[in-house]
Amino acid sequence: MLTIKTLIDMHATRLSFTGRVGLVPTMGYLHEGHLSLVRRAREECDHVVVSIFVNPTQFGPKEDLSKYPRDIDRDLSLLDPLGVDLVWMPMPEIMYPSAFQTWVDVETLTLRLEGVTRPGHFRGVTTVVAKLFNAVQPHKAYFGQKDAQQAAVIRQMRRDLSYPIEIVVCPIVREPDGLAMSSRNVYLDPQQRKAATVLYRSLSAAKEAYEDGVRDAETLRQIMKDVLAAEPLAEVQYVSCADYDTLEELDTVTGKALLSMAVFIGKTRLIDNVVLG
Amino acid sequence: MLTIKTLIDMHATRLSFTGRVGLVPTMGYLHEGHLSLVRRAREECDHVVVSIFVNPTQFGPKEDLSKYPRDIDRDLSLLDPLGVDLVWMPMPEIMYPSAFQTWVDVETLTLRLEGVTRPGHFRGVTTVVAKLFNAVQPHKAYFGQKDAQQAAVIRQMRRDLSYPIEIVVCPIVREPDGLAMSSRNVYLDPQQRKAATVLYRSLSAAKEAYEDGVRDAETLRQIMKDVLAAEPLAEVQYVSCADYDTLEELDTVTGKALLSMAVFIGKTRLIDNVVLG
Repeated sequence: MLTIKTLIDMHATRLSFTGRVGLVPTMGYLHEGHLSLVRRAREECDHVVVSIFVNPTQFGPKEDLSKYPRDIDRDLSLLDPLGVDLVWMPMPEIMYPSAFQTWVDVETLTLRLEGVTRPGHFRGVTTVVAKLFNAVQPHKAYFGQKDAQQAAVIRQMRRDLSYPIEIVVCPIVREPDGLAMSSRNVYLDPQQRKAATVLYRSLSAAKEAYEDGVRDAETLRQIMKDVLAAEPLAEVQYVSCADYDTLEELDTVTGKALLSMAVFIGKTRLIDNVVLG
Repeated sequence: MLTIKTLIDMHATRLSFTGRVGLVPTMGYLHEGHLSLVRRAREECDHVVVSIFVNPTQFGPKEDLSKYPRDIDRDLSLLDPLGVDLVWMPMPEIMYPSAFQTWVDVETLTLRLEGVTRPGHFRGVTTVVAKLFNAVQPHKAYFGQKDAQQAAVIRQMRRDLSYPIEIVVCPIVREPDGLAMSSRNVYLDPQQRKAATVLYRSLSAAKEAYEDGVRDAETLRQIMKDVLAAEPLAEVQYVSCADYDTLEELDTVTGKALLSMAVFIGKTRLIDNVVLG
């Protein structure tokens, strides 16, 4: 497993790959969710590239960039047995050289859900993902359904900017008690960790109602809110029942839909979602 | 020489290219300036792709999109003898599908010179060039020095977005009387055509002063303005003596500099430039 830090080495190594290349972009501090993407890439591609880069431009000024968890040695030891060909770990000054001034912006999709409370977040995501796509030139790129809006935004960017890249979105990987795996779960103390299961419990309750025939979106949102309200440590930021592709809030669920939420447990902001239809 | 209109065919053909690929992006209505780029690409690359696309998003609402000159048959007959492998002529609905909402924006460089009077122009240029880069994945891309600011903006975009593409900027090709070749020259009536030589005459006068030792930028700008003022059909939009890379207006010429201008001859807006140092 090769590890590379510069852009020049990345380009040179890419030229040596002859078959299909899969890219798994990550911010490191890997968990089973990331590893499921890597395994899928390993099955489908001749060469697997994992990028590890905590991207400063997708963090807001009040967000957790400086304390975002990092453990490169552990990450590399997790990736090595999976048959990864190349780990690309660029430094911030390589990704954002002086006088950097070019941004990739998806306009409409990014204004909803996460975009409401995290202005600029998706501009940072799409810019860095475009840079990763350009530097690695993969045939397939793997993202987690955990960040459902991110996946939708990347799909839109891929289409709009004519990238010849297949976007593969893999299912959420959960702890045995239902908590979606996230690098940020490490922030939770034991009491908070227990309370954090409320996200999936509320999503499951709404999904069950949907499977029982409920199609009124406001009813589904209310079911989630009621479950969340019963957990004293949970502070809800948003609860959504939206169209799967456009992320517009629905009145009635007719096609594929996304139930999603952002909830503070203490100071830790967690997101989760399930797909309907 | 293959001609292709869809994105799928473009991607499939690209996969069949094994050596170095050169891209010459154009808006068609080709002249000797474009052909000089194609010849250079032919010398340097194994496969030459020419794109012809009149990009609507780089025209302002009051600009000449609908009457921009087009002659595809003539373009193809000019390209065929040059050994071009592929001409890509996407339709606007392929480049900008419904719900298109992703833009590539170079922030600072685009505010100067052309950017002052053509807001949004460079956002259209960088977005379509990013799309061409992604769809064609060339090793080298060829641009004319005629659009000096465009070349600077594309160089910046290439660096900022980590494109593994060499940007080759080729010299301006001029008519025997010095007028820079441009698809828009066709708009000029005989009297205007004669008057249009004033751009190069004014640039040449300033360059001569520079070569005689003048380094004060305002003096150089004034020399250009004086020559332009003597031509009754010329209406000056801007005259600039700027740093070659940052395009910031200079007080004193110390390093590489760009003398440039935009001038209306009747209703036709012409640009031209020369490089100092």
